Amino acid sequence: MKLSAKDKGRVTLPIQENMEQEIISIAKKWGSDAVRNSDGTQLPPDIQKLGHKVYATYFLTRKDQEWASTHQDHLQQLYLMSEPVTAIADAVKIKLMTGYFDQQLTVDLNHNPKEWWEVIDRTTGAVLDPSHWDFDPQKKTLTIKKAKKWHVYTVNFLAYMVWDPTQMYNHLTNQWGDGPHEMPYDPRHPETKEHMLDRLDQWLTAYPEVDVVRFTTFFYHFTLCFNEQAKEKYVDWFGYTSSISPLALAEFEKVKGYKLRSEDLVDEGYYNSPFRVPTKQYLDWLDFQQQFVCQLAKECVEIAHKHGKEAMMFLGDNWIGTEPYGEYFQDIGLDAVVGSVGNGVTLRLIGDIPGIKYTEGRFLPYFFPDVFNPNGDPIGEANKNWLEARRAILRKPIDRMGYGGYLSLAAQFPEFIDRVEEICQEFRDIHHNIRSARPYTAPFKVGILNCWGRLRAWQCQMVAHAIWYKQTYSYLGVLECLSGLPFEVEFLNFDDLKSKGIPQEIGVLINAGDAGTAWSGGDNWQDKEVLAKIREWVYMGGGLIGIGEPTASQYQGRYFQLAEVLGVDKEIGFSLSYTRYPKPLQREHFITQDVTNPIDFGEGMRSIYALSDQTKILAASEGEVNLAANTFGTGRAVYIAGLPYNFQNNRLLLRAIHWAASREREMKIWFTSNPKTEVAAYPDAERFAVINNSLHPVTTIISTGEGKKVEVLLKPMEIRWFDI
Amino acid sequence: MKLSAKDKGRVTLPIQENMEQEIISIAKKWGSDAVRNSDGTQLPPDIQKLGHKVYATYFLTRKDQEWASTHQDHLQQLYLMSEPVTAIADAVKIKLMTGYFDQQLTVDLNHNPKEWWEVIDRTTGAVLDPSHWDFDPQKKTLTIKKAKKWHVYTVNFLAYMVWDPTQMYNHLTNQWGDGPHEMPYDPRHPETKEHMLDRLDQWLTAYPEVDVVRFTTFFYHFTLCFNEQAKEKYVDWFGYTSSISPLALAEFEKVKGYKLRSEDLVDEGYYNSPFRVPTKQYLDWLDFQQQFVCQLAKECVEIAHKHGKEAMMFLGDNWIGTEPYGEYFQDIGLDAVVGSVGNGVTLRLIGDIPGIKYTEGRFLPYFFPDVFNPNGDPIGEANKNWLEARRAILRKPIDRMGYGGYLSLAAQFPEFIDRVEEICQEFRDIHHNIRSARPYTAPFKVGILNCWGRLRAWQCQMVAHAIWYKQTYSYLGVLECLSGLPFEVEFLNFDDLKSKGIPQEIGVLINAGDAGTAWSGGDNWQDKEVLAKIREWVYMGGGLIGIGEPTASQYQGRYFQLAEVLGVDKEIGFSLSYTRYPKPLQREHFITQDVTNPIDFGEGMRSIYALSDQTKILAASEGEVNLAANTFGTGRAVYIAGLPYNFQNNRLLLRAIHWAASREREMKIWFTSNPKTEVAAYPDAERFAVINNSLHPVTTIISTGEGKKVEVLLKPMEIRWFDI
Repeated sequence: MKLSAKDKGRVTLPIQENMEQEIISIAKKWGSDAVRNSDGTQLPPDIQKLGHKVYATYFLTRKDQEWASTHQDHLQQLYLMSEPVTAIADAVKIKLMTGYFDQQLTVDLNHNPKEWWEVIDRTTGAVLDPSHWDFDPQKKTLTIKKAKKWHVYTVNFLAYMVWDPTQMYNHLTNQWGDGPHEMPYDPRHPETKEHMLDRLDQWLTAYPEVDVVRFTTFFYHFTLCFNEQAKEKYVDWFGYTSSISPLALAEFEKVKGYKLRSEDLVDEGYYNSPFRVPTKQYLDWLDFQQQFVCQLAKECVEIAHKHGKEAMMFLGDNWIGTEPYGEYFQDIGLDAVVGSVGNGVTLRLIGDIPGIKYTEGRFLPYFFPDVFNPNGDPIGEANKNWLEARRAILRKPIDRMGYGGYLSLAAQFPEFIDRVEEICQEFRDIHHNIRSARPYTAPFKVGILNCWGRLRAWQCQMVAHAIWYKQTYSYLGVLECLSGLPFEVEFLNFDDLKSKGIPQEIGVLINAGDAGTAWSGGDNWQDKEVLAKIREWVYMGGGLIGIGEPTASQYQGRYFQLAEVLGVDKEIGFSLSYTRYPKPLQREHFITQDVTNPIDFGEGMRSIYALSDQTKILAASEGEVNLAANTFGTGRAVYIAGLPYNFQNNRLLLRAIHWAASREREMKIWFTSNPKTEVAAYPDAERFAVINNSLHPVTTIISTGEGKKVEVLLKPMEIRWFDI
Repeated sequence: MKLSAKDKGRVTLPIQENMEQEIISIAKKWGSDAVRNSDGTQLPPDIQKLGHKVYATYFLTRKDQEWASTHQDHLQQLYLMSEPVTAIADAVKIKLMTGYFDQQLTVDLNHNPKEWWEVIDRTTGAVLDPSHWDFDPQKKTLTIKKAKKWHVYTVNFLAYMVWDPTQMYNHLTNQWGDGPHEMPYDPRHPETKEHMLDRLDQWLTAYPEVDVVRFTTFFYHFTLCFNEQAKEKYVDWFGYTSSISPLALAEFEKVKGYKLRSEDLVDEGYYNSPFRVPTKQYLDWLDFQQQFVCQLAKECVEIAHKHGKEAMMFLGDNWIGTEPYGEYFQDIGLDAVVGSVGNGVTLRLIGDIPGIKYTEGRFLPYFFPDVFNPNGDPIGEANKNWLEARRAILRKPIDRMGYGGYLSLAAQFPEFIDRVEEICQEFRDIHHNIRSARPYTAPFKVGILNCWGRLRAWQCQMVAHAIWYKQTYSYLGVLECLSGLPFEVEFLNFDDLKSKGIPQEIGVLINAGDAGTAWSGGDNWQDKEVLAKIREWVYMGGGLIGIGEPTASQYQGRYFQLAEVLGVDKEIGFSLSYTRYPKPLQREHFITQDVTNPIDFGEGMRSIYALSDQTKILAASEGEVNLAANTFGTGRAVYIAGLPYNFQNNRLLLRAIHWAASREREMKIWFTSNPKTEVAAYPDAERFAVINNSLHPVTTIISTGEGKKVEVLLKPMEIRWFDI
């Protein structure tokens, strides 16, 4: 096999009409073997001439706007919470739509408010008797008659979605002017379901040139509401709010044997954000909707298969209920999943999905005018994206790659076209070299413990898709490191832990997040079984890594319930009376051996103190611990205040995991001395790669599986392959 | 009256034997009219010759060590918690004294452990049945027989105090070698009480030259435990832990009608630190002990009076149960209170004590070798102390001043002696000028709302006396500012608020502290009455200032329960899905008008966001709000992330209070343009003073009560008096 020779395949090209010559030229350069359209672009009529596989985007619940118009009582619905209003008199008037975009959402006047809504006194949590309020359907105003003065009230009300969020977003972003607003309909209604399936069947008949139906996506959109200024108000990439309807709620009651309250879904206005410790009711709702969505998606896929097409799902938009890591997903029978690659974590989110034939990543930048303009830096964005994704690909390769947007825009940047040519070839070369072999990984797994476990594998701490949040980047960095580190990662929740214990293969358990969130665990840390199991496991040799506010839940004299294991706790004011003496830093430690710059703990964590002199403090600032190592029985624990992704932190986590697992020696099997570089070895393919994750030339010494040392000089961003 | 002429009085000199000439000389320079001894020094025999009033320190509960030795079952007692031990087997052995200093504390072998102790499973909070553990009195080891593996256990046990904490501290600090360890006895025992009173009587007879009995102090020491290295382990200047005994507990049950558990006092190892939201049980214990202490202190005072002596109490050491702002203190009948002046707040803590004839402040530095050495800066410390105290003295003058420690040490620093001469004269001049008149204050009061209210007036956020803690200085600054600002300050707790409402005179309410602490208020912020009362009051024109985590208690969709009033809330992870747009800073505002440097918010507060566009953001960093102003009805609210004491913050608070009260105009009555300076006016005395709080010369323009402007140039640290 000749490596790095130019070849083709594994690449999907976004195309559009009226640029035939450029398509042929770029397709050749990039070695593409498939084409796709995007929202807003059409496939050229003579597309078959290219000899490519053809993907066509299909919108199941908004394709037929005539149906939507004539079945407005079948439009998708939500429960919304009105803005809180303070009662300054006995009568309180609440305008339901205050703060919402009336072109997107409209109050449901079809279902009896007295039956379906709840007016809640947010000062006491009490639900008002429906006789105490009236709703004016003309003015969309609700009046509480005998309010308690100076209490705060909100209304949970049903609304219809009269504009699909993604189409609305694209429409407003690309200024489509008075183009139609597409309204999404709900296939819970049997009539609409039949129509939707029929239409899919007809469409497939009408477009024989299509090879792959790119479902974008199935039925329910993640929660995305706009405000009165037509700007994003609320976004939860995991939110099930738009899957709610009286029909579904009635069905839920039949299936689950109890009735959900609106408040079970509105959740004080937090709408069960994944940062909330999930309630039984919400988990039941997820389970219930997954079953419906996956069953109906399966029917769609079967129709595609019947027409001899492949079925591909876009990971995003109307993906709610599919839950690729849930228990029903594989029943859908999809051939492929395609998703946007924002970084290493989202690459793994796609790449690790089980039970499908192939996966595809849509890389950045999207060919939109926000980047493809004279001041934009499309090559810089492509490099950053590729460097973050590549290390994850080496761990768990996606099968295909592609881009999205307007090819006509990208074509105006020939250097970008050239750079992508290199990236595409690098991508194919990875596959040529590893030939489906699995990379060498440490002989133990890393477990991530939070309230969600496997259902949210590679999805922790995410709000909108791959968007940076000040409150999350210090935790997301942990997963970003892991996306390319030589560990198998398993995601566990507290129920898993209690029912099955900690799986044998796990060497290190990580708990990372802010106190009270689902990522840290909230009151699960007052569960004696959870605490006892982890204490025992660490004592017997396990490794625990806590980041931020791990095991946090104030109880019985501790804030970190596993403070004795971690060797640190957080001062929240109650134990200031315990005199704390400055403790020396331990300057040399296995964990910090490659640290050359001040460690970046991101947002860090205040007021962390060492529980006793036994705790080794590896980094501290202003007298507060940022990094600590502790032993507990024969096991070990590491505390880290926060860990944004960068080369030094990536190395620090690699070391911390090996140290916590008491397997420091094994770190040097397939190891590279320079933290800007990483090595991935494929013993079964007898190949290994060294990558330079930086934009500069670097030298590094590789330790091979047999302990041989190889020094190499790598060009900026280089990947170099070697025989084992 | 000739001002600033040298005169004498109001100053107490610490003296010792064998330095007669220096005493005469310093007494003359400082204008002292009283002398005192310290712990470790004796009054010279011919002290009367000086013509000064004589104070003698008297230790009620450790004066007679023979009594202590022969009545070891009458020694003072504590409940202590053992260090937490994780059960790694069915049997768990806990060494009770691990972590404690055995020269200070010893396990109580006189009272039945099975009756008085509690062994607690800290993983579940459950108390073990006493049949499940055994205590070995020889080894001081407790063994749990059927522990739950991997649970954590602690023991609440009774101990005797075999070394008085203050004498121990002085002994160890001054290396008194094999000097005797003084053991404190408990006058709850009737026999010991009689002996203590008799001995006081005899002593008073034996020392006719004494004019003032300086009780140091009464019976129970604040909580101060040392560790195995003979260093401070736990210190709570307000702690009642050393007032506990089976005798007192039995009496408590009779008086209060229910039995206290050891855990009511041990409190998970937090020992009811004032940062904990106080429980009913703990408040009952405080009330019970106050009654006992004040009644018995009254007997001591009466004996002093019978001998024609004045009775003075030292505010500190064995002051537990006196509670100068409690309801029983005035019954004691003291003539005077003397306390250590650490800053403006502690000056006010002394100066504001009601119902006594006079107050005295002991200024810093203490004449000890830690400062009085060739590398020390006694003058610098004296200046800092005086500048912080002076502005508080102008608000509420203490009657006398003095110093403590070894005069022989201070005498070696003649420039220090000279500087104190000036300070003493400045102090007398204040009294000459104001002639007991009250300073002009704003026409409304400032209320401080927390769980303690008046009982801890000027004592908020304090751990050890006037010691700096990273977690508290950003809140203590608020009180430090107020100690010298022209406002009357009232301290309220939540019960006051609920039972009596917000007093009419209060214009602004301040709530400052970390979430969950007694200073912020904890779950009191889920009390609908509290919330409704404050909302109504602000809406009708009141002003609320929140600092740090005010009104914080996560409930019903809000972290700050008065978020609607404050205009801000804190993001704790649950509402990240609500999209937040950068909001413009309001560069010009009444509150920030004198800001010239970046505002120092101390530790500040993360993740504060504006609730709506109505909130005016006056300072922000990294997209998070540090200072904001909001309106609610006709009232106003200000949020401040933290407010350490400095000139700029002092001015900022002055402005924030006036703005919140909607009384901006009245700020300029007796106002000074330069924030490094302050003005205090005494209309009844027809005098006003301008002070320069800085170490540099400054110019400022004074606005008088009638709006006249006067420009003055002040020397470093100068105070200058004018006629009105």
